[in-house]
Amino acid sequence: MGQGQVTNKAHQTDLSFAHRLHAAVERSGTPLCVGLDPRLASLPKSLQPADPTSLAQIAEAFRLFSREVIDVVAGQVGVVKPQAAFFEQYGAPGFAALADVVAYARQRGLLVVLDGKRNDIGSTAEAYADAYLAGPQAPVASDALTVSPYLGADSLEPFVAVAQQHGTGIFVLVKTSNPGSGLFQDLVADGQPLYRHVAAQVESLASGTMREGEGYGAVGAVVGATYPEQLTELRAAMPHAWLLVPGLGAQGATAAEVRAAYDARGYGAIINSSRAIIFAHARREYAAVANWQDAVAAATRETVQELAAHRG
Amino acid sequence: MGQGQVTNKAHQTDLSFAHRLHAAVERSGTPLCVGLDPRLASLPKSLQPADPTSLAQIAEAFRLFSREVIDVVAGQVGVVKPQAAFFEQYGAPGFAALADVVAYARQRGLLVVLDGKRNDIGSTAEAYADAYLAGPQAPVASDALTVSPYLGADSLEPFVAVAQQHGTGIFVLVKTSNPGSGLFQDLVADGQPLYRHVAAQVESLASGTMREGEGYGAVGAVVGATYPEQLTELRAAMPHAWLLVPGLGAQGATAAEVRAAYDARGYGAIINSSRAIIFAHARREYAAVANWQDAVAAATRETVQELAAHRG
Repeated sequence: MGQGQVTNKAHQTDLSFAHRLHAAVERSGTPLCVGLDPRLASLPKSLQPADPTSLAQIAEAFRLFSREVIDVVAGQVGVVKPQAAFFEQYGAPGFAALADVVAYARQRGLLVVLDGKRNDIGSTAEAYADAYLAGPQAPVASDALTVSPYLGADSLEPFVAVAQQHGTGIFVLVKTSNPGSGLFQDLVADGQPLYRHVAAQVESLASGTMREGEGYGAVGAVVGATYPEQLTELRAAMPHAWLLVPGLGAQGATAAEVRAAYDARGYGAIINSSRAIIFAHARREYAAVANWQDAVAAATRETVQELAAHRG
Repeated sequence: MGQGQVTNKAHQTDLSFAHRLHAAVERSGTPLCVGLDPRLASLPKSLQPADPTSLAQIAEAFRLFSREVIDVVAGQVGVVKPQAAFFEQYGAPGFAALADVVAYARQRGLLVVLDGKRNDIGSTAEAYADAYLAGPQAPVASDALTVSPYLGADSLEPFVAVAQQHGTGIFVLVKTSNPGSGLFQDLVADGQPLYRHVAAQVESLASGTMREGEGYGAVGAVVGATYPEQLTELRAAMPHAWLLVPGLGAQGATAAEVRAAYDARGYGAIINSSRAIIFAHARREYAAVANWQDAVAAATRETVQELAAHRG
């Protein structure tokens, strides 16, 4: 059950999620979050499974690949974000690999935001929260989970209750990075787009879960880097919510465009990049790098520098 | 990988999901869908694990319990709906039990609607679709999956593409059964509540995936039985979408209240009941029943009869 004996201060559950997230960014010196999105076709040749139809072999390759990425980035960033879908794609062995990767990342001192976009109501939402957010003894003990808001406040509250109790957190989808996110999220009701209604709920839950002396709560928001104007607007609308900002790199947003996500001290947001880092070996600019791990290290270093240049 | 040698006609992937769902309701004679929501505290005594802190033992208990429920209801209903959250709550062993239960239900000739409320964008949504909807060879080969719509049309389309190709389907959350579902779903934009905007998208995808000579497509909608007025409204708004109607039984809706979900021939909707059936042994009215399986059988029979009385 989880990794049991975590002693790293970042994982003490008497500390709030907001505190631990701030510490992870401060300690690493960067808001960069590395997305762990393994894909069979993109794995380095050395990790390709002998039988590409074997779920067990693919899951094992994902496990090893993710662990190696974690080893490379652990000294450079404070947060990783495994994407549940890419593991579930390979069934029960894939899910077991995900559980292993989450535990390993935390053993290496990283904060883990599990990107599962879970959502449900009442005791069902509680079951998801128990799976992922109930502290070191949870079966897939993550530090935070992404959550979809369509079902309403009573679908978020069970997650919030478990998170607050265990020093973990959630990131609620508010304005997502995909081209079609506006179809529902931008619909205007009572003079405000839907994403602002969701943002108001997130801000209420965030400020309601703040601990004394802290500026952020246990509830954050996902806001895509691909919509820089909304990033500015939503940073202001949710002053007590950490933002998880996807869309950097492969999805096209730049380090300059995410500047609006930070608070005045350069905190309050983590910026995710997945493919551009973990599959850096396939990028032309790293073609000369001898092995794929060095390409990951170089791409991480470069992204950290880019973000630093636009964080001040 | 899945159960391999399925020969039951209900699972032929050259047949559409709408066709197979209609056949499942017709063959069983009831729109009842039994929800498989195992909960540790509610399991019959004979199935309680010796060590209630062992993930492996709990997962095995869930697997056996769900298989026994399936054995009891297989002759009475055509569809079951396992809830992913209750299995994920017990980590990798729980997920493996879920995969086993899904495969077993299909072996027994039941259609499986996996209640996972998954959602994501682009290739990530595709990964979820490949996990659950890619036909008998998918790792957790289900007949349909519940999907949350907040991310927009480009988050639904990858699911739809995989479903259409493999004769499977999705049910999109439109108006959910929880008390707080109105917070966002009832917001009025452009003269219509958000749930109607989502319904319009569902209807478009449903009619776009209809096969020749069929009245329904591969895309359905979740509409809670606890909102009978919206059920009437949404049946009319989505004439080509099967409805998955939760909220009967433990959540308080009656068989009379779901009448509005059916089309003129009494088809077009499946009605879910979970706790009131699978944990019938704990209900006062079945206290005299000798074993829990007989209580499940009796509660199923009773619910089938209640629904039949209000389906004409």
